[in-house]
Amino acid sequence: MTAAGTGLVRHPRFVSLEGGEGAGKSTVLAALRGALEQAGEEVVCTREPGGSPLAERVRGLLLDTTGDAPVPQAELLLMFAARAQLVDTVILPALQRGAWVISDRFTDASHVYQGAARGGDRALIAELERCVVGIEPGLTLLLDLPVAVGHARVRGRGQPDRIETEREEFFETVREAYLQRAGLHADRFRVIDAAAPAEDVAARAVALLHAHRGTQR
Amino acid sequence: MTAAGTGLVRHPRFVSLEGGEGAGKSTVLAALRGALEQAGEEVVCTREPGGSPLAERVRGLLLDTTGDAPVPQAELLLMFAARAQLVDTVILPALQRGAWVISDRFTDASHVYQGAARGGDRALIAELERCVVGIEPGLTLLLDLPVAVGHARVRGRGQPDRIETEREEFFETVREAYLQRAGLHADRFRVIDAAAPAEDVAARAVALLHAHRGTQR
Repeated sequence: MTAAGTGLVRHPRFVSLEGGEGAGKSTVLAALRGALEQAGEEVVCTREPGGSPLAERVRGLLLDTTGDAPVPQAELLLMFAARAQLVDTVILPALQRGAWVISDRFTDASHVYQGAARGGDRALIAELERCVVGIEPGLTLLLDLPVAVGHARVRGRGQPDRIETEREEFFETVREAYLQRAGLHADRFRVIDAAAPAEDVAARAVALLHAHRGTQR
Repeated sequence: MTAAGTGLVRHPRFVSLEGGEGAGKSTVLAALRGALEQAGEEVVCTREPGGSPLAERVRGLLLDTTGDAPVPQAELLLMFAARAQLVDTVILPALQRGAWVISDRFTDASHVYQGAARGGDRALIAELERCVVGIEPGLTLLLDLPVAVGHARVRGRGQPDRIETEREEFFETVREAYLQRAGLHADRFRVIDAAAPAEDVAARAVALLHAHRGTQR
């Protein structure tokens, strides 16, 4: 583990997947897990918000479409509360025993969704990342695709949750903010064209993971 | 409303009750509500954590003794998430239409429980108060009593929740931290000896509320 310029501890064996709705994160996650297990590694897969019993209950509050919707500041803090629980009870214990951790989303998603897209307090988000999260992935794969393509894929899946029912413009902002973060943090981000066929996307993700492992030896 | 030295907006018609377990906050809250209603005021009573549908669900996560307990940083953020929701959806709308708001606990409780007693990051707590809460009560009544007296009262009530089952030393720290805050913020804090008979405590609280109202005219 190495200290990054951001004051966060970067863990090489910690991989995050980012991207909008319908980008195919689940398929890529399964492919990465398979590749690492084939190489004899222990792999812990998790997702955000959620990934621990308490954090999954917080996820329920965040994605529920029936109750009173969280105000933006509450949403931001619930996200970071779930993340603090996930880091302390799942991610750090796994990394410390030598396992790989793959997370479907991590703090980049808060910078993008609660920060850029919802106009949240960016300084507060950075402060929460530093004080409450403290770590960042060694490799972040951004599955990028045009908003319309993602939406068409999601519509095939059934009932959208609260966050998925946001308007088109919101998702354009999300896409641009993700690409901007990938540019700013080019040392750990790799962008994958997720409009390609699913097997090609997964193969590209696995190749990038192997390249990343190669640099860690 | 006036801006206080802390950068928080102080609302004269916003009253908070603070104090350890068994201090008699519920009885005092009912007496304050009665006194204000008798004076023809609209009164909104609330409690922390909770007080709005979403915040009550967060309260459930915080006080549950069966699931995985929140790690300290998660507890802190869940508290502030519930508070952000309560401020935006209940407290500010009530104050803006001219009502009084009485809250069973507010941000002082986070400074005391998550900060002083659990060793949480005090700078982060202050930052969250400033960025996410933004307001403070015009009057805070601290119901102070020896820890052993509070415990004896609580034991008569049935099953304790997770926070109530903490050890004695913890509650001593809580008591001292509350008294310290009362000293630091003497302009809005009033300390009441809660070891006195319940009716005397309530009468004292009502007298302090009337004195506070008198200064606002």
